[in-house]
Amino acid sequence: MGFKLIKKLKNSLARTGEIKTRHGIVKTPCFMPIATCASVKSIDSVQMEKSKAQIILGNTYHLYLRPTDKLIKKFGGLHKFMNWNGPILTDSGGYQVFSLAKMRKISEKGAEFKSHIDGSNHMLTPEKSIEIQNNLGSDIIMVLDECAPYPATKKYIDESLELTTRWAQRCKKHFDKKNVKLRKNDRALLFGIVQGGTYKDLREKSAKQLLQIDFDGFAIGGVSVGEPSEKMFQAVDWTAPLLPEEKPRYLMGVGKPEEVVGAVARGIDMFDCVIPTRNARHGTLYKFIKKSDKIKVSKSPGKFYEIMHITNEKFKSDKKSIDKNCGCFTCQNYSRAYLRHLFSAKELLALRLASIHNIHFYLELMKRIRNSV
Amino acid sequence: MGFKLIKKLKNSLARTGEIKTRHGIVKTPCFMPIATCASVKSIDSVQMEKSKAQIILGNTYHLYLRPTDKLIKKFGGLHKFMNWNGPILTDSGGYQVFSLAKMRKISEKGAEFKSHIDGSNHMLTPEKSIEIQNNLGSDIIMVLDECAPYPATKKYIDESLELTTRWAQRCKKHFDKKNVKLRKNDRALLFGIVQGGTYKDLREKSAKQLLQIDFDGFAIGGVSVGEPSEKMFQAVDWTAPLLPEEKPRYLMGVGKPEEVVGAVARGIDMFDCVIPTRNARHGTLYKFIKKSDKIKVSKSPGKFYEIMHITNEKFKSDKKSIDKNCGCFTCQNYSRAYLRHLFSAKELLALRLASIHNIHFYLELMKRIRNSV
Repeated sequence: MGFKLIKKLKNSLARTGEIKTRHGIVKTPCFMPIATCASVKSIDSVQMEKSKAQIILGNTYHLYLRPTDKLIKKFGGLHKFMNWNGPILTDSGGYQVFSLAKMRKISEKGAEFKSHIDGSNHMLTPEKSIEIQNNLGSDIIMVLDECAPYPATKKYIDESLELTTRWAQRCKKHFDKKNVKLRKNDRALLFGIVQGGTYKDLREKSAKQLLQIDFDGFAIGGVSVGEPSEKMFQAVDWTAPLLPEEKPRYLMGVGKPEEVVGAVARGIDMFDCVIPTRNARHGTLYKFIKKSDKIKVSKSPGKFYEIMHITNEKFKSDKKSIDKNCGCFTCQNYSRAYLRHLFSAKELLALRLASIHNIHFYLELMKRIRNSV
Repeated sequence: MGFKLIKKLKNSLARTGEIKTRHGIVKTPCFMPIATCASVKSIDSVQMEKSKAQIILGNTYHLYLRPTDKLIKKFGGLHKFMNWNGPILTDSGGYQVFSLAKMRKISEKGAEFKSHIDGSNHMLTPEKSIEIQNNLGSDIIMVLDECAPYPATKKYIDESLELTTRWAQRCKKHFDKKNVKLRKNDRALLFGIVQGGTYKDLREKSAKQLLQIDFDGFAIGGVSVGEPSEKMFQAVDWTAPLLPEEKPRYLMGVGKPEEVVGAVARGIDMFDCVIPTRNARHGTLYKFIKKSDKIKVSKSPGKFYEIMHITNEKFKSDKKSIDKNCGCFTCQNYSRAYLRHLFSAKELLALRLASIHNIHFYLELMKRIRNSV
């Protein structure tokens, strides 16, 4: 269980590897489609398998509130509940508490909040977050962190990262208590999250503190809460080299295709983002410019894809598939004109077909990246 | 091309047969899922094939307005546009003009209306309806009829059916002009529609008039516009025996499962209805009471299925599939609890999984009926 470094790109931090989880191996760099409420929006788990997704991400906050982690536990975990047999990473729930829930109150103990669904009161402590993720049967568990707002004062970020470190320690302790009873191959992995906002010294401080706690992998957090691309890359440039080479690095909530490539070149192994599915539901589709099984892995990869607004009039009678070189279900079966028509007529099928294509684009992007390292 | 009677049930009008169309054979009695806007709501054509749908129904009114029949013609017809290679029946557009469009004006010439989408003015004549259905590449074309409101005076219904007959003649004439140029195996089929409301003598009059025009099949119309079940069955009891045995009989817009069985026992071969998909989208699911490959085909078939409101609290932690004997994609892969959760969380996937199940139920019902005749 854990990470195996396979190959490193010359003169770069880019690398390929494998994360061994109790539900199988994930080749990195990888992209994790988001199954917010136990479903990648509009796509069933069987199709996700056909799309060759290696690992998906479940949202602890959503699943805790509905259908509840206790219910999912009764089913033997999220895998069985949603009929997905590959690895699952769950977030800590913290991010959604800060972005979705109402009346948040942060204290040493944890994050108090009101459910956005029914207004009920809840307390998410580091121990509770681990508890929930354990109930979900997650293969990769994230520690609870405070997601500081952007922008924030240095003082705020500093205090926040210190709290995040103390919470990380509590998470580790609680995780070990549960996990130590399991045989090695049945254990989940636990990832720490480096915070520190847009301050170099604070990123370094956070990384240093977390390295002293023994985690199976490290995430870089707090980079997608409204930050522009350059600030995000800066945080990665500061942080990634401080993280141990033999552990996977996960850039949370990132990002656009060029950000993914740029982050791989900076040493990142794992990504998740709502962009492909959310954009798909708005008719925004991705298309590679060149037919190839490789891609230039560089900090500034240049333009390698196009965006297509499928609802545009110009696709009205376009008989071609979205991308003639794409092997996804949608491109194999339907034309741009048909997809445009489904969007115009507000047919539900539009959302599914577009989502399948965009997820495929992201997974194909990761494959090209792995082929190129 | 046309109908072949295979078997008749003893002491009943129920029968099995085959309709040969230019896109393949349809075993009857059959149910036609409705692909309103070139998509069976939430289900792609590949899944419809996997679900073993034999034939689907396209709505002329919707497709004429959007994406337009002219566009679909450019694609080589609806089959190619939506990637469905089986037979397609299209309605005449009349029903939606009467139920959806605004500012309708009926005259000898045709039905004038404003689009419900953009308010634009249109005129649907019998010739125009045939034109559109030809452009769509329909395999079974329906004549334009006036769908009289329910209830209506006898005088209104009488005048309406006379108009319907004159329109049917014009449709036949226009259809023949186009169709006669085609080789026999490339021809579409044209169906007439018997009207006459809830009046026996008017149903007889309409049937008699239509029989004098040579159609490939006959529909019974005007039975689902607000009529109660008994009135519908009465109309079928009066009409079906008057229709030639060697031609298929289609009961438009019907119905609930017990109505379908009851109508088969009265001599009907073809059905279409929005019930399975619309109910699915509201979480109302069908389930056979007994595991069997047959069903009692009778005018009063008794209770052979149950309705399940999947959003009900009692399914919250139900690990069973909707129906343990069901072979549909949904039942093979997901539990009641998962489906209930998807509905609670308003996940798009709920609508698809529920629709796939209900369509399968209807198709399975028809299979059991065919096995039992």
